[in-house]
Amino acid sequence: MTTTTDATPTEAADSFPVSQVNKVKRAPTRGHYDKATIYGILDAALVCHIAYVIDGWPFCTPTGFWREGDHLYWHGSSASRMIRTQAEGVEVCLTVTHVDSLVMARSGFHHSVNYRAAMCFGRAHIVEDPAEKLVLMDRFIDRIYPGRSKLIRQPNAGEFKGTTMMGMQIETASGKIRDKHVSDEEEDYEGVPAWSALYPITQTLGEPSECVRQIPGLTRPEGMEDFEPGTRLDDLMTKTYRRTFG
Amino acid sequence: MTTTTDATPTEAADSFPVSQVNKVKRAPTRGHYDKATIYGILDAALVCHIAYVIDGWPFCTPTGFWREGDHLYWHGSSASRMIRTQAEGVEVCLTVTHVDSLVMARSGFHHSVNYRAAMCFGRAHIVEDPAEKLVLMDRFIDRIYPGRSKLIRQPNAGEFKGTTMMGMQIETASGKIRDKHVSDEEEDYEGVPAWSALYPITQTLGEPSECVRQIPGLTRPEGMEDFEPGTRLDDLMTKTYRRTFG
Repeated sequence: MTTTTDATPTEAADSFPVSQVNKVKRAPTRGHYDKATIYGILDAALVCHIAYVIDGWPFCTPTGFWREGDHLYWHGSSASRMIRTQAEGVEVCLTVTHVDSLVMARSGFHHSVNYRAAMCFGRAHIVEDPAEKLVLMDRFIDRIYPGRSKLIRQPNAGEFKGTTMMGMQIETASGKIRDKHVSDEEEDYEGVPAWSALYPITQTLGEPSECVRQIPGLTRPEGMEDFEPGTRLDDLMTKTYRRTFG
Repeated sequence: MTTTTDATPTEAADSFPVSQVNKVKRAPTRGHYDKATIYGILDAALVCHIAYVIDGWPFCTPTGFWREGDHLYWHGSSASRMIRTQAEGVEVCLTVTHVDSLVMARSGFHHSVNYRAAMCFGRAHIVEDPAEKLVLMDRFIDRIYPGRSKLIRQPNAGEFKGTTMMGMQIETASGKIRDKHVSDEEEDYEGVPAWSALYPITQTLGEPSECVRQIPGLTRPEGMEDFEPGTRLDDLMTKTYRRTFG
């Protein structure tokens, strides 16, 4: 990873330095390097995709995750056995993508989607300390369902042992956002008679289906006030994140 | 990549051989290796995440893509300059994930999400042949918007040159699906008084927002009959795929 940076010292505190690793090359005007933007994209997500290498082959694994400061955490992947042998950590790229709309233009070149994506680079390690691991296991639940770790049964010995908790410090990162309507070549607006439009895409929560073996009388617990059917998942994840982490 | 396989010869035609690369290790009962299941997951998706390695670092890039037979295609990524120099192709893992629900259990261990994911392994190459590339550029549009390539302006020389079309044959792949309700330890159903439920999550199309510079009198074209607001994106992608590829 090169350490060449275009960032000035005053930018450095709130932004990730731009290097060959994280520089947005295609459509560079869509690139963002400030932590507020990148963290906002991360904290609105339930699931990420993580790239790592085993025996020279890249793997891309979807998994749940969350952020605390400049650290990211997730459950162990199929890489965990390999990672366990690497005290220095193993290079990963953790990516989050929100798709916001389809954009139909008058040429193939200007067809697009609106999206918000963040790519985070760092070295993953296993959280070995049992006390830290137990706290993180609770936070993984609470990050999605605020306060829930206090309501459920705590992990037993087998579950604790069978769970691998991974973490990494974000060494560098970038965000990439497209957030505009159809944008065509000037001559195509009148010259190409193709109906053009933007179709919004939203991911939303439905009506809950209660467990058929629910203990009678139980109702949706405190802390889950944001779980209203019809809520956008990105809004929900942002709200529950803030309830748990402030 | 090891070529060890557990598949019998009769399975081989319709399934991917199981090796150390594609074997589902966590929750192996969720693993699927048959092409019908894996292709169904792929063809229901607008966006994938692709893992590849540049200078030893893994990258995970979200991008649009589509399938034709056992080949996958997508636009050039930031790896394209590197890939151009590698005639043998470069190893990639292309992953598609659909998130279907949140599953709240009575222990942290049994919290889950329902999902459908596919991981495809192969070697990416650049489509260099101009005629093949032009056909693929049209299909990329038509895969999402059936018939649209005939309505829009064709690529000009600069756009054609500026677009990198990537392809790969799927060498091996796996699917992973969780599709069930809350599943707790037997003693927890009555022993843990935590409200438990499944919340469906759906990604849906909204009302179209027409381009403000639309030529008066144009309406949604033939081929886009499936673009009804409220349609699930995975259903829409499956329907448009079938309209274009049969």
